[in-house]
Amino acid sequence: MIHKIKTGIIGGAGYTGGELIRLLINHPNAEVAFIHSRSNAGKFVYEVHKDLIGDTDLKFTDETSQDIDVLFLCLGHGESTKFLTENRFKDSIKIIDLANDFRLEKDRRQDSFNRNFVYGLPELNREEIKNAANIANPGCFATTLQLGLLPLAKAGLLKDIYTTGITGSTGAGQSLSATSHFSWRANNIQAYKTLTHQHLGEIGESLAQLQPGIEIDLSFVPWRGDFTRGIFVSSTISTDLSLEELYIIFEEFYKDHPFTSVSRSPIFLKQVVNTNKVVIQLEKAGTKLVVHSAGDNLLKGASGQAVQNMNLLFGLDERTGLNLKPAAF
Amino acid sequence: MIHKIKTGIIGGAGYTGGELIRLLINHPNAEVAFIHSRSNAGKFVYEVHKDLIGDTDLKFTDETSQDIDVLFLCLGHGESTKFLTENRFKDSIKIIDLANDFRLEKDRRQDSFNRNFVYGLPELNREEIKNAANIANPGCFATTLQLGLLPLAKAGLLKDIYTTGITGSTGAGQSLSATSHFSWRANNIQAYKTLTHQHLGEIGESLAQLQPGIEIDLSFVPWRGDFTRGIFVSSTISTDLSLEELYIIFEEFYKDHPFTSVSRSPIFLKQVVNTNKVVIQLEKAGTKLVVHSAGDNLLKGASGQAVQNMNLLFGLDERTGLNLKPAAF
Amino acid sequence: MIHKIKTGIIGGAGYTGGELIRLLINHPNAEVAFIHSRSNAGKFVYEVHKDLIGDTDLKFTDETSQDIDVLFLCLGHGESTKFLTENRFKDSIKIIDLANDFRLEKDRRQDSFNRNFVYGLPELNREEIKNAANIANPGCFATTLQLGLLPLAKAGLLKDIYTTGITGSTGAGQSLSATSHFSWRANNIQAYKTLTHQHLGEIGESLAQLQPGIEIDLSFVPWRGDFTRGIFVSSTISTDLSLEELYIIFEEFYKDHPFTSVSRSPIFLKQVVNTNKVVIQLEKAGTKLVVHSAGDNLLKGASGQAVQNMNLLFGLDERTGLNLKPAAF
Amino acid sequence: MIHKIKTGIIGGAGYTGGELIRLLINHPNAEVAFIHSRSNAGKFVYEVHKDLIGDTDLKFTDETSQDIDVLFLCLGHGESTKFLTENRFKDSIKIIDLANDFRLEKDRRQDSFNRNFVYGLPELNREEIKNAANIANPGCFATTLQLGLLPLAKAGLLKDIYTTGITGSTGAGQSLSATSHFSWRANNIQAYKTLTHQHLGEIGESLAQLQPGIEIDLSFVPWRGDFTRGIFVSSTISTDLSLEELYIIFEEFYKDHPFTSVSRSPIFLKQVVNTNKVVIQLEKAGTKLVVHSAGDNLLKGASGQAVQNMNLLFGLDERTGLNLKPAAF
Repeated sequence: MIHKIKTGIIGGAGYTGGELIRLLINHPNAEVAFIHSRSNAGKFVYEVHKDLIGDTDLKFTDETSQDIDVLFLCLGHGESTKFLTENRFKDSIKIIDLANDFRLEKDRRQDSFNRNFVYGLPELNREEIKNAANIANPGCFATTLQLGLLPLAKAGLLKDIYTTGITGSTGAGQSLSATSHFSWRANNIQAYKTLTHQHLGEIGESLAQLQPGIEIDLSFVPWRGDFTRGIFVSSTISTDLSLEELYIIFEEFYKDHPFTSVSRSPIFLKQVVNTNKVVIQLEKAGTKLVVHSAGDNLLKGASGQAVQNMNLLFGLDERTGLNLKPAAF
Repeated sequence: MIHKIKTGIIGGAGYTGGELIRLLINHPNAEVAFIHSRSNAGKFVYEVHKDLIGDTDLKFTDETSQDIDVLFLCLGHGESTKFLTENRFKDSIKIIDLANDFRLEKDRRQDSFNRNFVYGLPELNREEIKNAANIANPGCFATTLQLGLLPLAKAGLLKDIYTTGITGSTGAGQSLSATSHFSWRANNIQAYKTLTHQHLGEIGESLAQLQPGIEIDLSFVPWRGDFTRGIFVSSTISTDLSLEELYIIFEEFYKDHPFTSVSRSPIFLKQVVNTNKVVIQLEKAGTKLVVHSAGDNLLKGASGQAVQNMNLLFGLDERTGLNLKPAAF
Repeated sequence: MIHKIKTGIIGGAGYTGGELIRLLINHPNAEVAFIHSRSNAGKFVYEVHKDLIGDTDLKFTDETSQDIDVLFLCLGHGESTKFLTENRFKDSIKIIDLANDFRLEKDRRQDSFNRNFVYGLPELNREEIKNAANIANPGCFATTLQLGLLPLAKAGLLKDIYTTGITGSTGAGQSLSATSHFSWRANNIQAYKTLTHQHLGEIGESLAQLQPGIEIDLSFVPWRGDFTRGIFVSSTISTDLSLEELYIIFEEFYKDHPFTSVSRSPIFLKQVVNTNKVVIQLEKAGTKLVVHSAGDNLLKGASGQAVQNMNLLFGLDERTGLNLKPAAF
Repeated sequence: MIHKIKTGIIGGAGYTGGELIRLLINHPNAEVAFIHSRSNAGKFVYEVHKDLIGDTDLKFTDETSQDIDVLFLCLGHGESTKFLTENRFKDSIKIIDLANDFRLEKDRRQDSFNRNFVYGLPELNREEIKNAANIANPGCFATTLQLGLLPLAKAGLLKDIYTTGITGSTGAGQSLSATSHFSWRANNIQAYKTLTHQHLGEIGESLAQLQPGIEIDLSFVPWRGDFTRGIFVSSTISTDLSLEELYIIFEEFYKDHPFTSVSRSPIFLKQVVNTNKVVIQLEKAGTKLVVHSAGDNLLKGASGQAVQNMNLLFGLDERTGLNLKPAAF
């Protein structure tokens, strides 16, 4: 590779934008051409993402440039469409959108600004991603939840699925709200968007892609957790297969995927915090199978997966720049 | 009431023993006659339960007395049987056991020391408790989980139930272990005893008591939470009844039970921490009903309910001594 | 006592207002006549303080009444003056202000609405409080910090004091802010108002009251803690007295004060959370004395102390209604 | 550089050993030759450090090898001396000891196994480290605390210092104890080793190295914090210099040190968690200066600094392998 991938970031002041900056400034084959943030233009990045003090002298700008190879959109849901409608980029510039604007099949072809998006879950669509022009980066719950179910879908085993998941506060972004107020959230648990979470659509499409023809019914109860990073999910289904048969199905499915590990010992959330990894564990009693999966909502669930997709788009090893030291504690 | 209820506590140095002391020293109609702890005999209670500094000058003892009205057993599971076999108390002394020794139907009649136990969930068995000689106090998960399901059982609506619950670290007691080590547990989530939790037996018997004849299949996935107090549970079942019809069933069921509240707005764990209350909320989408319930594992899930049972045994208002200031935050 | 003390609360929707309600609804000698909150008028109290579900059917009102014995002001700093200027209450109604409006000597006599305030720290001014018409309730940091220093002031031992204190998030109230955002505050520590905390004034006046004539220099560094309730303070001074001599000074000073305990074993924050107590511990090496003290910012540091003051104002035992079950965990 | 630095690790199953592995497996110029752990010999590293699942296939061994360039000792305090006495390594193998065995001047020359140690704080001794044979890696509190004081020592400004510091639970290692039990430590604060912390010795020697001839009196109150990673320290001294003059002294001192940043805006603990950085902020009122500093106890306070020292020992840029993605949240 002769030159480094030139990247631009739109919405660099938010949580996913910040994580993306943290990854890209250490990426050996990428460089940051600009970080767009209207409200912070002119400020040093470390004035907003204060943990980057000493790490970078990049500044936010309110201008964009066409002299990039890839553009990351780290905007609120719905704002990517608006941004791309109002700001045209050369067709040769690839776009990776971290919002939910282009994830569903009906949204992947955008005629108004002439772009096609591929759903960017490498464990599902790696070859398509390699050849894609643009990527719709999956949601955080969608990623961790799907990775626990895709092998079962491929094996044709899914029908009724009962899932509970818990997410860290960073999943709700940096805007202040009653449910992100420390005095409320500390030591607290609450369900939200019970049975109606916005990621059900993309999950359903992925499962149907691997297990077509059978209607799958996913009952998903998301909880707010009293921690900042990470998602833990447990899904229960009925199956007559043995635990050993099921483990083989999972191990086979993920054997070439470096960021998804199938564990035969008990997993826990902090195994993956501050990494791009997802870990999966199976447990069985009678005819019931429970699949546990855990991932970091800001990395494999957002900015880490976005970099993984960038790597695939540009022919790099998908692990490049993503060998992150786990926080561990 | 002429005299105060004289209480004895066996195992007063543990977590449930400590909570019981905290409640009984402020109970207007009870007094603590002795607190038994072999390893702490002679120490002031506040040397072990250090938050009780300034509140009580009681000491632990390694002796017991027959001059009591009720004996609380706050021992490890299995140890109550051993204790009662080795230590005889007058038949007139009522026993409230906080362990799981006498909760199941097969264990309630104990011929070797000639005692019968009633399963002490007031919302299920209040009248039996009032007339009981001895009480098997329910488990913490069992309490919060059952209270979310009993009205459905009574309405004959249960068949397949999918439940996830999360519990605070105090549920594991004060013995040190890898999963209660702060560096591990902080900001962490892990499943444990998936589909095999020891409370499934008592829950199953309670549900069958209200909904006999139909086999109920409860898939329960318990999680370790990164907080100290409280249990939050979400259970999913299928039903054609409307949310309004279901709320009426719950409200009717609990209308005379002061510690169980049915909420039509979103509940959360900290509503009930440091109280003897359980809150319940219902949500519905399509044919799926999700019941959320939350309780404090050490109070309504253990020592608070034990005091509630004592109140019922001795003809007091069941709220006596249990109007606790919530921690709230 | 024939009738219960009739209480009114202004600003009942905030954190200190909520704690006051939690205390007063269980107080055996008081009743709540009205809870004023303009923005929540008409709502049930449990719709705002959701942990009070099942505990009270009180509602907020936007009206006040003269038919009370005591009025609690739970308003923002500076707003009490404004409120009392605009709303006149009969002279016979005692006022307990939880804000900082009347704490300093220069503010205690208010001619415009003809009221005199006594600084309501019972360990300093118990007799004056008993005979007072109105009370300026001390600040949270001020309470915990002073209680660690008052015996030293009385013994004439203070000169240069170096203090660090850490406070829970509830000290900042319920308004949303960047430093109370869960994603920021969890697992975080930050200094704020270094050497300039607003409680220095009231602390200085109290110390001077007991140790007049010597200029005391208090360097106070407050920290934001990653917990919700409580204050922990360590103060270092130089003295030639022995640890034993110092302990005797402290024990003598507090021997008749039920809520302040001097501990000869290591103290910790959770000893006092959800109680009206303060615990104090001394440590010495060479000529340096370190005094640790811990209290609950919302109780002994605010609403609990307000009720303690009410008890004293009305001739009750100061512990009435304040034998609270500690949260302990 | 032709070959990668071959590293050996003694005590690889503990917290600092684990962090070292996490760093070295991603270090571009180092490789791990062996990881010694008697109790875990034969196990995969990821079976103990479970977050390393998918990252490495290294195993623990109970054998050591002479075919290494550097040996890291991650043993308990006092055990390094014992280990080096019983296990001889070629003189050409450099040793980096993470315990406190060789930090003090009196311990740096070890005749029994013929090794001299340099105190490995690069901001103090960078040139000596580059030419050293062996390194005594500083303590965690010692590092963060000293970095806040060294510029003042060099300017000759130190005399009486009053410091409070708070540390995460990982500072106490992985052995189970009452003060690392989650139910106790969550939401708790406690002082420990008041005025007697074991790092006072090494701090004192470093300060005297830069400011000889004046007796410095450091009163240090350490606190246990309710978080896992990080140290936050505030030190107060008296000085007539202005804040601006002081900032210039600090900025000048650290201008060539990549991991220590002087901040003119408020710092906080999470700026540095999961990084090798320390941030410092100054505040002044009257003649009192407060210096805040924050660092990660396991990285700049232990294993990160050990790698920084390895880099210096072998002529690498000291940042090599230490551009870590901050956890940030």
